[in-house]
Amino acid sequence: MKALILLGCPETPSQTPMAVYAFSKLTKLGYDVTIAANPAAAKLVKVSDPEGFYNLNIVDLERTLGEVSEGDYDLLVGFVHKDAAAAFFVTFDQILNTKSIALVFERDLDLVGQFVEMIEESGSKANIYAVRAFHNPSPIKINFDKALKELE
Amino acid sequence: MKALILLGCPETPSQTPMAVYAFSKLTKLGYDVTIAANPAAAKLVKVSDPEGFYNLNIVDLERTLGEVSEGDYDLLVGFVHKDAAAAFFVTFDQILNTKSIALVFERDLDLVGQFVEMIEESGSKANIYAVRAFHNPSPIKINFDKALKELE
Repeated sequence: MKALILLGCPETPSQTPMAVYAFSKLTKLGYDVTIAANPAAAKLVKVSDPEGFYNLNIVDLERTLGEVSEGDYDLLVGFVHKDAAAAFFVTFDQILNTKSIALVFERDLDLVGQFVEMIEESGSKANIYAVRAFHNPSPIKINFDKALKELE
Repeated sequence: MKALILLGCPETPSQTPMAVYAFSKLTKLGYDVTIAANPAAAKLVKVSDPEGFYNLNIVDLERTLGEVSEGDYDLLVGFVHKDAAAAFFVTFDQILNTKSIALVFERDLDLVGQFVEMIEESGSKANIYAVRAFHNPSPIKINFDKALKELE
């Protein structure tokens, strides 16, 4: 089983910790996990595991988008906290056409609603977990754990 | 040898990855390392090491401030990216009266200058490393590595 985690741009302080958390959790569930991120987001994830204990597999987001096809992954997990991240999630979701989870979070609740709409209007069947969050990773963590439970 | 790492508020995305990096690096240099952080910053650090590989030792910032005395630590390292963080650094620096490193970073260069001034005007003998940074942890990482080298 293969899982792809999409990171958005690195602005939110919760994303990097949650990327390691999601990678670790999915690996334990038996997934072969890949993290796709832009260069800045990737750098943050790499610095956060200086000893390489987590064996994080990080690839370039744009490049992966150019190479990926239906069937390459069994699960897509996207961190959505910007327009661009929502757009990337929707695109990967359409290409991969597999089980998918969108973790939508923003400090502004209106934006949370907008990103959810963007995903829904794309015709995606993604399981969307949306919450107001920025500094505190706990609401996103709770949503991610719930998403994995509902996946079973 | 004991080292204390002070985290500022969790707003900047570079702080959590750099906290793990600094903890790991100082541990390798033989320090017994403690991270002092407010509850939100502490939560981010904890989520970023879900398996506990780094054995991060995290304590409450305010509580530590109430308990700490001169001689408790041989090295103080502070992440300074807000007024509050600069104030905490200056206070710990005065109490501990030991070798200290201030890693000053902000996306706004004027604020970088202000925080450096705050530390200097306190009469601190800290080694101050200041840089414009927010998303990208590399400039902070380079400064931290340089600071450790100059410590030797």
